[in-house]
Amino acid sequence: MEGQTGWKLRHIFRNKKVNQVDDHENSSPKEIDEVNFDFNVIRNDKPADYAQLEIFHRAASPIMLLGQCFAVMPLTAIWQANPRFVKFRFKSVQMLITLLFMAASLVLNLSMMKFLVKIGITAKNFVGLVFYTCVQCACILFIDLARHWPPLIRYWTRVELIFNKPPYEVLKRSLSQRVRLSALIIIGCSIVEHALYQTSAVISYTRQAEFCSKFPNSTMGGVSFENYIVMNYSYVFQVLSYNRFVGAYILLVAGTSTFIWNYMDLFIMMISKALAYRFEQISDRVRRLQNEERVPESTFIEIREHYVRMCQLLERVDNALSSIILLSCANNLYFVCVQLLNIFNKFRWPINYIYYWYSMLYLVCRTACVFLTAATINDESKSALAVLRRVSSKNWCVEVERLIFQMSTQTVALSGKKFYFLTRKLLFGMAGTIVTYELVLLQFDEPNRRKGLQPLCA
Amino acid sequence: MEGQTGWKLRHIFRNKKVNQVDDHENSSPKEIDEVNFDFNVIRNDKPADYAQLEIFHRAASPIMLLGQCFAVMPLTAIWQANPRFVKFRFKSVQMLITLLFMAASLVLNLSMMKFLVKIGITAKNFVGLVFYTCVQCACILFIDLARHWPPLIRYWTRVELIFNKPPYEVLKRSLSQRVRLSALIIIGCSIVEHALYQTSAVISYTRQAEFCSKFPNSTMGGVSFENYIVMNYSYVFQVLSYNRFVGAYILLVAGTSTFIWNYMDLFIMMISKALAYRFEQISDRVRRLQNEERVPESTFIEIREHYVRMCQLLERVDNALSSIILLSCANNLYFVCVQLLNIFNKFRWPINYIYYWYSMLYLVCRTACVFLTAATINDESKSALAVLRRVSSKNWCVEVERLIFQMSTQTVALSGKKFYFLTRKLLFGMAGTIVTYELVLLQFDEPNRRKGLQPLCA
Amino acid sequence: MEGQTGWKLRHIFRNKKVNQVDDHENSSPKEIDEVNFDFNVIRNDKPADYAQLEIFHRAASPIMLLGQCFAVMPLTAIWQANPRFVKFRFKSVQMLITLLFMAASLVLNLSMMKFLVKIGITAKNFVGLVFYTCVQCACILFIDLARHWPPLIRYWTRVELIFNKPPYEVLKRSLSQRVRLSALIIIGCSIVEHALYQTSAVISYTRQAEFCSKFPNSTMGGVSFENYIVMNYSYVFQVLSYNRFVGAYILLVAGTSTFIWNYMDLFIMMISKALAYRFEQISDRVRRLQNEERVPESTFIEIREHYVRMCQLLERVDNALSSIILLSCANNLYFVCVQLLNIFNKFRWPINYIYYWYSMLYLVCRTACVFLTAATINDESKSALAVLRRVSSKNWCVEVERLIFQMSTQTVALSGKKFYFLTRKLLFGMAGTIVTYELVLLQFDEPNRRKGLQPLCA
Amino acid sequence: MEGQTGWKLRHIFRNKKVNQVDDHENSSPKEIDEVNFDFNVIRNDKPADYAQLEIFHRAASPIMLLGQCFAVMPLTAIWQANPRFVKFRFKSVQMLITLLFMAASLVLNLSMMKFLVKIGITAKNFVGLVFYTCVQCACILFIDLARHWPPLIRYWTRVELIFNKPPYEVLKRSLSQRVRLSALIIIGCSIVEHALYQTSAVISYTRQAEFCSKFPNSTMGGVSFENYIVMNYSYVFQVLSYNRFVGAYILLVAGTSTFIWNYMDLFIMMISKALAYRFEQISDRVRRLQNEERVPESTFIEIREHYVRMCQLLERVDNALSSIILLSCANNLYFVCVQLLNIFNKFRWPINYIYYWYSMLYLVCRTACVFLTAATINDESKSALAVLRRVSSKNWCVEVERLIFQMSTQTVALSGKKFYFLTRKLLFGMAGTIVTYELVLLQFDEPNRRKGLQPLCA
Repeated sequence: MEGQTGWKLRHIFRNKKVNQVDDHENSSPKEIDEVNFDFNVIRNDKPADYAQLEIFHRAASPIMLLGQCFAVMPLTAIWQANPRFVKFRFKSVQMLITLLFMAASLVLNLSMMKFLVKIGITAKNFVGLVFYTCVQCACILFIDLARHWPPLIRYWTRVELIFNKPPYEVLKRSLSQRVRLSALIIIGCSIVEHALYQTSAVISYTRQAEFCSKFPNSTMGGVSFENYIVMNYSYVFQVLSYNRFVGAYILLVAGTSTFIWNYMDLFIMMISKALAYRFEQISDRVRRLQNEERVPESTFIEIREHYVRMCQLLERVDNALSSIILLSCANNLYFVCVQLLNIFNKFRWPINYIYYWYSMLYLVCRTACVFLTAATINDESKSALAVLRRVSSKNWCVEVERLIFQMSTQTVALSGKKFYFLTRKLLFGMAGTIVTYELVLLQFDEPNRRKGLQPLCA
Repeated sequence: MEGQTGWKLRHIFRNKKVNQVDDHENSSPKEIDEVNFDFNVIRNDKPADYAQLEIFHRAASPIMLLGQCFAVMPLTAIWQANPRFVKFRFKSVQMLITLLFMAASLVLNLSMMKFLVKIGITAKNFVGLVFYTCVQCACILFIDLARHWPPLIRYWTRVELIFNKPPYEVLKRSLSQRVRLSALIIIGCSIVEHALYQTSAVISYTRQAEFCSKFPNSTMGGVSFENYIVMNYSYVFQVLSYNRFVGAYILLVAGTSTFIWNYMDLFIMMISKALAYRFEQISDRVRRLQNEERVPESTFIEIREHYVRMCQLLERVDNALSSIILLSCANNLYFVCVQLLNIFNKFRWPINYIYYWYSMLYLVCRTACVFLTAATINDESKSALAVLRRVSSKNWCVEVERLIFQMSTQTVALSGKKFYFLTRKLLFGMAGTIVTYELVLLQFDEPNRRKGLQPLCA
Repeated sequence: MEGQTGWKLRHIFRNKKVNQVDDHENSSPKEIDEVNFDFNVIRNDKPADYAQLEIFHRAASPIMLLGQCFAVMPLTAIWQANPRFVKFRFKSVQMLITLLFMAASLVLNLSMMKFLVKIGITAKNFVGLVFYTCVQCACILFIDLARHWPPLIRYWTRVELIFNKPPYEVLKRSLSQRVRLSALIIIGCSIVEHALYQTSAVISYTRQAEFCSKFPNSTMGGVSFENYIVMNYSYVFQVLSYNRFVGAYILLVAGTSTFIWNYMDLFIMMISKALAYRFEQISDRVRRLQNEERVPESTFIEIREHYVRMCQLLERVDNALSSIILLSCANNLYFVCVQLLNIFNKFRWPINYIYYWYSMLYLVCRTACVFLTAATINDESKSALAVLRRVSSKNWCVEVERLIFQMSTQTVALSGKKFYFLTRKLLFGMAGTIVTYELVLLQFDEPNRRKGLQPLCA
Repeated sequence: MEGQTGWKLRHIFRNKKVNQVDDHENSSPKEIDEVNFDFNVIRNDKPADYAQLEIFHRAASPIMLLGQCFAVMPLTAIWQANPRFVKFRFKSVQMLITLLFMAASLVLNLSMMKFLVKIGITAKNFVGLVFYTCVQCACILFIDLARHWPPLIRYWTRVELIFNKPPYEVLKRSLSQRVRLSALIIIGCSIVEHALYQTSAVISYTRQAEFCSKFPNSTMGGVSFENYIVMNYSYVFQVLSYNRFVGAYILLVAGTSTFIWNYMDLFIMMISKALAYRFEQISDRVRRLQNEERVPESTFIEIREHYVRMCQLLERVDNALSSIILLSCANNLYFVCVQLLNIFNKFRWPINYIYYWYSMLYLVCRTACVFLTAATINDESKSALAVLRRVSSKNWCVEVERLIFQMSTQTVALSGKKFYFLTRKLLFGMAGTIVTYELVLLQFDEPNRRKGLQPLCA
């Protein structure tokens, strides 16, 4: 394909143009035809055994399958090795799960709103509303992403085929390992976080119930699952009345919401890892070149072409993903501020301290991880620069110059709707901003903190 | 024209130089001559039927005509298809309307000042003064813009003629549609905002009058138009005494002021849409080139020339407009902060909540819209960059290099007197700043909020 | 000189190198020799009649002479047309004046310190100390600048000779007009400010004395010059005892201090105007080139050489001046914040309101003026860029490319010790910072403001 | 070595690649072999008498030896002239000292934690915990640095050999002088700071003991060393009981901790001085070139190669050091904020004022010094730019263009984990941030300040 004259990436462009005109045509005949054509071209080179290839679709599919159990990204045939079978269908089991969850969580969210309007909104009780609204927005954004996913993942896979052939080499830790490891760590930590939350709530409730039951005119009943649910999720009972199924329903929806809330960050990390991996492969190839006496210009032409192709892929992924990135950043910023405020409060039981400190540390680490992982794309895209600057006069050519100029002036990174780019510098700026907000908020919250703990059995 | 040797844009330059020496000469014989000359040159190519062309003057003229009814941009013959008939005359009906309105609003503003000096200025009652002062400044800046408008719109039209011929194509949504749609949305929403404001004021007044009339020693009269005006615009009656015409005059001036206050943002949006449209056309042309095997250097020379010409046009528009941009930004920043504070207050009647929430959301959206629309100029000016980076070695030439360098290093955007450029990054920074201000202001306002509502019939 | 081969600006460089090794040698024989040599070279071209040339030394000398009356920049022979006679001598009348003033103001400053330690430092009474310390620092920095001035002004004049010959033209408003006009405006406004301050103080004192004299046990004496001085400058009388000469001495030192405090900003403005003028001349020359069919490369070589030479001059001026710039910025930032806080206070007499509002507006305007004037250097250094981007393919050469690259990537501006560059963007950032500080300070000051006015005759 | 074709810095690269794969192999046979090989190559040129060379290892070794006495950087054979004998061994006296200190300070830190949990954490008593935690982190980071030091210093020395031969010249103040002078100043000032702290503590204690002993029911005993230690380091006695050795142990650990806390900054300064020195040598060489009529391209090739090599060295040093830089910056930011708050407090004895003011000034100066010294790397790396811009058309070549482009677009500076680069601009931004934090913190601390001094003998 590299030997083609004129504008090199022609048929890809045509494809892109089609997408711009109609981005929803994931099943139009033209699209499928073209995709087939494309895949055939590659298949001529090498009959594609996708199960053997190191592609993002394969690396992420178990995690995405897990996500689908929790109502995220309703796509069919995600477990197939070949990404061309992936489809978005409104009439599918996955879509049904998603819609069911959205309806269920909407009930919780509306009852929360009704409850807050009744008791008055404060900065403290506002958190729950933000949480559920955020999760529902994430759901909608993931459905929207799912609609654009089939053409995107096919395009992505086509680009990735380049990097599965020499001269590109598999790096030390393979793509699947990197993508799945980061996902598993997040999932593990988030399960601990949710478990601690429930433990903290249950223990607080049990202690309080035991303690207050001694008082004659206490409104608290005995220690039971019903009473726990009624007390801890009181807002739900603005619109529903309690029975055993409602209790289970609440716990299920709350758990799933927590999963989705974590899944946003997890998904951004997976994609970042996959994209950074490819840029690392390009850098790796450039690095290996430096041992050669004489590098032909055609090699640099090819490298530059692949680099530009990766930038294009990044651009397309960014377009599809940046709403989720924006939501995730706003969400993380808000919850980090809230949890940083919370740890300055006094609590009654030691388990509360454990939960709030763990939760705060988990949130800060997760936020930092998402930013840092996304920033590696930017880091890796520039990492070949140091090597290219050492190209000797003999090997110097206009293509190297163009490549250096592009690497120096272009910001290659995921972005939040192009308002900001996820780079290491951004994280530094964010940290400064969070400290400022926190100092002002702490001062704000001073009167509440001074009041201390309320009487236990009011 | 492109075949010309030496410095290509020569006669345009000469024209610009003349303008620099004397920018006010909108009726000097030399200017008219030169303009005629210029237009003739183009007319030789193609007899200009302006009514058929897709030019900003035609697209914006209905909106500008509407503006003139509300005392903005006093130009004559704005409805003519040919922009060369547009003139600024001190002796014209439009100028008369403008001056009348300015006198009328000055009375209100002065009486407001007198009133505030009497009762003492606070952050809360300061808002009205800022509003009227801002509107009057806008009026003066629009008169100044009108003086520079005739040569500017003629120059603009000359540049636009390039983009009405092949190889440039009309884009999916035409210039007129884009310009007018954004204007109509703003106008629609602002009418709702003003109607809600009056409804909120009237209902609050009626309820209060009904309620307080039961008390024997209440100072409030019965429910009447007179009493409403006297109570709601009490500051006017520092200098005038009430009669029916004064009441109508107050409502008229207040309504017109609100229109002008919105018109500033609307005008910036219209101009941004028009400029971004042209840059999009250039990008579109470049994008179509990528299917060609071999692109001659002369094509890139032409594209670069048109790009530079658009940058020049943007520069001239920015010079004329940036005072209004500065005023609009300062105004939006202030009112967003104020309305964000207001929604944290307690109100007596539900209609007040509806008004303040709608007003706040409207303001935030309008501000975001102005910034985002203006930022599209910057986005579109860079959108061809991705395509140009993919130009193959065969087509690579010094002109492509120059074009890429210019696009990479120059900030092509409207600006606030060059203090800042309206780009997506600015909006992000602004949002962070507003949050900081808001947190500090909320803390500031805490004592007032804690006091809660005052007795209704004091 | 342009025909010289090898490195073009050679003898200038050698001169610079000498200066780096020993920057104080303003009267060493080698330096004078070299300077003579240099001047002769130019004199061969054209016998230099400095009185006829448009040079900064001539433009600024009246203002600098005035400054010397107020103990600033102790140089001899500043009034001579030829800058080579300007000398810095420790044994001179100008130095004597400066040292006398420094001793006199040191007494005031020390007595102020003693007073503050006695009554306790607060944010309010701290202002006087900052004022005097700032003035004394300015004095020392100006002496340091004076030591480096003679070689600097000679180097500057040599560079300026280039711009006094064709093809450079005198711009519309000449250098002298620009430099002197800005100086006179600042001086005028500062005199009004100081007069208002004294008027405000005298009237407050008189009213208070008249009012309180009615009370039997008042500690205030009758209305007299002595009592006014003793009350208004009470801190001085910690170390001195009153007599008529001490009174005059206090008023004289206070007046001179105010002059120096304003002179810092004035001096930065004069230098900025002069440097920006030269960059404007270069841009003007480039602009005139665009009418020519064919521009030889040698012309661009010459222009680039002159541009680089101006950058070098700017660099040298910046090295000498940037301590003063740093002091001036810090000083302005502090006093703008203080005066913005002051206008929110309650005062007893109307004249106080007039003074504080005038003072605040004057300070804000002066600060903005200094920044904006300094920023014009940056603006003008880039203004030729738009024209250079339109150079056609035929005239394109490596020298134009180098010039465009340099203009695009280099920040040509005065700086505060390279910590920040005085550009329009900086002013925008500063404004945002001042608003943040002001909001926090206002909240801080809230308790004091709430107390209101103290009893008049305590 | 420069005559080599192909990629010039080949064997260095190979070395680097090895390091990337396994960075810990400081004693693997392959590494030693390669190092020997490398050193031999150089030795053939010139038998290396390291004692005569001006290398960083020699310049810093006395300071590093001193550091080892205080448990920092446990390396063996640091005093040897030849850096190839420097080794990191777990079984060494230096390592033993470090581990002993870490154990000893851990006891203090844990007892501090226990104490704080008991009495409740406040912003004030939090300082001690931060101090000890910071010192322990520094210890661990220095051990980690020591592990990577032997290969790093060998690589560094190899690069430095280039600059010990003509055409590079020794600069006015030699490398050793620069490195050692800055170290000695910091050490001197820090000893004064620690002495003042002890003096202040002892005098406060003595006065209080004398004063309170007059009261019958005072809990304070007589003036003794034991009582001083028990009162001033009360937190230690949560876990230990007093005897004479414990007293000495506390003072020793506290002193050593203070040394390490200062050593971090000192170390960054030494390294910055050494790197900036080399960039200055390159600039110096370029500057000397400007007197030559005709500079061959090979000279510019060589200069660019050395520049790139220095950038590589900087990159490697930055990778090894940036954790320490991050810790040092965070630490300095925190303590500057704390000490700026402290000086607004009221103290009982004059010695307290002296200590707090000295300590604050020392901290501010030390922080500024570290930043400014680190920023000189950035300044010096760009200082040749002004000269290169003046290269005439005749000497202009693609290598000069590449060098200018690299200097203009690359940020050559030490960094805090690439989150931020230590440049002059950063210091300006930091100063603004510190002022904001300080204003908010001052307002926060207002209630505590208003309370004033507690009764002495409570």
